[in-house]
Amino acid sequence: MPNTVGILSPGDMGHTVGNVLRQNGLRVITCLQGRSQRTRQLAEKAGIEDVPAYPQLVTEADLILSIMVPAQAMSAAAAVADALQQVDTSLTYADCNAIAPQTVRKLGGIITAAGGNFVDASIIGPPPRNPGATRFYASGPNLDTFSELNDYGLDVRPLGDEIGLASAIKMCYASLTKGLTALCTELLTAAQVLGVSDALTAEFQLSQSALFQRMENGLPGMPPKARRWIGEMEEISATFAHVGLTPNILTGAADMYRFVGSTHLADLPPEARDEFPTLAELIQILAKNLKSE
Amino acid sequence: MPNTVGILSPGDMGHTVGNVLRQNGLRVITCLQGRSQRTRQLAEKAGIEDVPAYPQLVTEADLILSIMVPAQAMSAAAAVADALQQVDTSLTYADCNAIAPQTVRKLGGIITAAGGNFVDASIIGPPPRNPGATRFYASGPNLDTFSELNDYGLDVRPLGDEIGLASAIKMCYASLTKGLTALCTELLTAAQVLGVSDALTAEFQLSQSALFQRMENGLPGMPPKARRWIGEMEEISATFAHVGLTPNILTGAADMYRFVGSTHLADLPPEARDEFPTLAELIQILAKNLKSE
Repeated sequence: MPNTVGILSPGDMGHTVGNVLRQNGLRVITCLQGRSQRTRQLAEKAGIEDVPAYPQLVTEADLILSIMVPAQAMSAAAAVADALQQVDTSLTYADCNAIAPQTVRKLGGIITAAGGNFVDASIIGPPPRNPGATRFYASGPNLDTFSELNDYGLDVRPLGDEIGLASAIKMCYASLTKGLTALCTELLTAAQVLGVSDALTAEFQLSQSALFQRMENGLPGMPPKARRWIGEMEEISATFAHVGLTPNILTGAADMYRFVGSTHLADLPPEARDEFPTLAELIQILAKNLKSE
Repeated sequence: MPNTVGILSPGDMGHTVGNVLRQNGLRVITCLQGRSQRTRQLAEKAGIEDVPAYPQLVTEADLILSIMVPAQAMSAAAAVADALQQVDTSLTYADCNAIAPQTVRKLGGIITAAGGNFVDASIIGPPPRNPGATRFYASGPNLDTFSELNDYGLDVRPLGDEIGLASAIKMCYASLTKGLTALCTELLTAAQVLGVSDALTAEFQLSQSALFQRMENGLPGMPPKARRWIGEMEEISATFAHVGLTPNILTGAADMYRFVGSTHLADLPPEARDEFPTLAELIQILAKNLKSE
């Protein structure tokens, strides 16, 4: 039974997870070394305690959850492994990031070599503000500690004892949701530039109304997340290539989020819903950015 | 007002269109030079008359509809342009194929240089067996003859006088429907290989039920069409690249249809619904083909 959970790092997803655990009776700590002002504010808001350095983090925490952009996951694991070796303690380290299974196996090796218990985990759904909306998939040889989080407000779903399964389901799932969003963003932008936007909208409303509704609901809030999705699309691309499938669809999705991330829309914070453009405004802005390149 | 419509060529889509026009009182002809036995049978079934050569086709037809795979569209237009110059006649030539706008403009130039009236057209929806299911978009400087087909059972929708608009709407629309199908095929195959198929299916049924329903309905009938969709995906890829967007998503969709087209499932005729696999069977077959590569 965990008493203290460490969260690296308390960004949009991480601080919400930390808040749920804290409200359900756990102590939640983090180490804000080198983190942004925004992350510091989110940690404070969620009642997450800051400890000054990693050796203290690994000493006090029974379980560490790594929740961050894919590009940072490996160095976070390496820092924790370093600290584990320095202070001669043990804990469970759950990498909850959107990472290719073959990469998560390497990452897990670093933790287990340092004496930690490694859990491959993944998060499907939004930050868990509302019960029932978010699943925490987990796989690995010892899921006991991580699975206890079921009693502290999270919905944990074990997938088996093999490292990589939890990452695999995340890769496949996110390729649908974020891959489709990238495709829709691209085709609507193309239609705008090609002068068939109104006709295409009418055709979609006639024959693809559910998908068009999804675009209207989902696309306007995407730009603030576009930059962090680039790396996730690249991880999925690597996952698909690793099993012999084409990397190109997801490489293209990464291209799209790189393009959207290059616009001023990506500077909005994700919670600034009032400032989001409409779907039509978003596409006009993207088409304009395209032309000026 | 057209009396005789030529159709090149009466394949799955073409013979159905021809059948509608014939049933609505038009004479429909084709030239089966070099066409497959299957196309000959479809033409006969639809009551489409075969004329021995292109000069006769262009002499007798007031309007020619080009309906074929993208790779054949340019040589069909060249053959008709040749014939037009030989027999000193005129007619309206509508390219109804899934072709990039920049390519259709070149193709149109060949027809107009030979004295023909060129219409950029595109078909959205299934072969028009049921009224209201299929739209025939059209653009170009003179749409009069083509628009008359509205009185003969087709739903013609003019988009303006610019060649390229009708092709553009088709490219953007098909990128959604066929691009999404390619993405779904890829991610389900990956999930199968990675051992998370059941968990992903359960997650989709929980949180993406509409999209999963779409996969169950749409994917099993896709393999017989996969080979002809390769070229269409490449045309869309070229369309997006031409306006400065990434070609990669649609290049990847072409890769997926090339892969599916390499399996025995692609040898089934599209009307063999009874022989289609279930979604789960389809994905198992694809995963097996992947492993044996």
